[in-house]
Amino acid sequence: MGAALAAAAIDAGHQALVVTGPVDVEYPDQAEVIPVVSTEDMLEACLETFPDCDGLIGAAAPCDYRPVKVAPQKISKTGDVLKLHLIETPDVVALCASVKESQWMVAFALETQDQRIRALQKLERKSCDLVILNGPGSIHSPTTLLEIMNRDGEILAEVAGTKEEAAREVFRVIAEQLIHPTAIAGSVAPGMKQN
Amino acid sequence: MGAALAAAAIDAGHQALVVTGPVDVEYPDQAEVIPVVSTEDMLEACLETFPDCDGLIGAAAPCDYRPVKVAPQKISKTGDVLKLHLIETPDVVALCASVKESQWMVAFALETQDQRIRALQKLERKSCDLVILNGPGSIHSPTTLLEIMNRDGEILAEVAGTKEEAAREVFRVIAEQLIHPTAIAGSVAPGMKQN
Repeated sequence: MGAALAAAAIDAGHQALVVTGPVDVEYPDQAEVIPVVSTEDMLEACLETFPDCDGLIGAAAPCDYRPVKVAPQKISKTGDVLKLHLIETPDVVALCASVKESQWMVAFALETQDQRIRALQKLERKSCDLVILNGPGSIHSPTTLLEIMNRDGEILAEVAGTKEEAAREVFRVIAEQLIHPTAIAGSVAPGMKQN
Repeated sequence: MGAALAAAAIDAGHQALVVTGPVDVEYPDQAEVIPVVSTEDMLEACLETFPDCDGLIGAAAPCDYRPVKVAPQKISKTGDVLKLHLIETPDVVALCASVKESQWMVAFALETQDQRIRALQKLERKSCDLVILNGPGSIHSPTTLLEIMNRDGEILAEVAGTKEEAAREVFRVIAEQLIHPTAIAGSVAPGMKQN
């Protein structure tokens, strides 16, 4: 989805900066790509680059948790139950929101129940302008089914199709709702610099 | 490594049956491939096919643990530590060994410390004929560094190079040690049927 969004942004004449985890995805040649591994790395890269961007789309799914302790050696089987203690990683989108100036921000919400209520809570918590709802069926699938919701909980668009088709529609809504109303002179792009 | 071993076996004139987890690997066209997802699925496929095979090489790294409880819905962040309780999955190679008749068996051991002692314990516990030691550097790498050890703890060969080169050498040692001494009429193959 990130690659498809970057392509849609570039096709619309914008610059795209992609901060990506270690995924097996090809990004458009014209995109600037910053590869990261951990959620902490992603946060650092985003906080460093976000001030120079006009907006941000949070399409990545960084790990929400990390182990409290990392074993220095391989853990041998003992026959007992293994108890893994995990703590939350920082919320990359919410922390970018805490330093934003005039940027627009769009979050993704993947939920398995009470999708709209949870997506709206996420939109609020992450101080975003729009949230895009999708389900677990979108993971590792060439197609997707999305709803785009604003801060009033209105569904602005429902999108189904390939991720490329969905990305173009998502980008059209972002442009209409967030870019054109605020940036009269020239257009701006998702997670990226003005062209 | 599994793909390279299957190719080495086929090149030596054997039939190769590959039971593989959901990995992004291309196996040789001539190999029969049974795809599985969980360690339990892998066990079932191996127990069903192993009786018709002349030998087995345990090169897969199936998950050693699975969650005690699987959440029916996505787990929301709460700010608290998440405690994950994991139980051991069945040992595929050891359970194949428990039903073996005349088959030869080779295990892999990936250890980060006390490699030889732990590998020898694993060889014993899994009732194998040979164990191949490697380290975490082999994971997701095109090259590898292996030691092949017998039940007396003797290092029969040290192999370094690409996985294809290593697989040919591993297969040469298997043929010399396990196939030729026992199977006079015709040769046999790793994890697979006589050709």
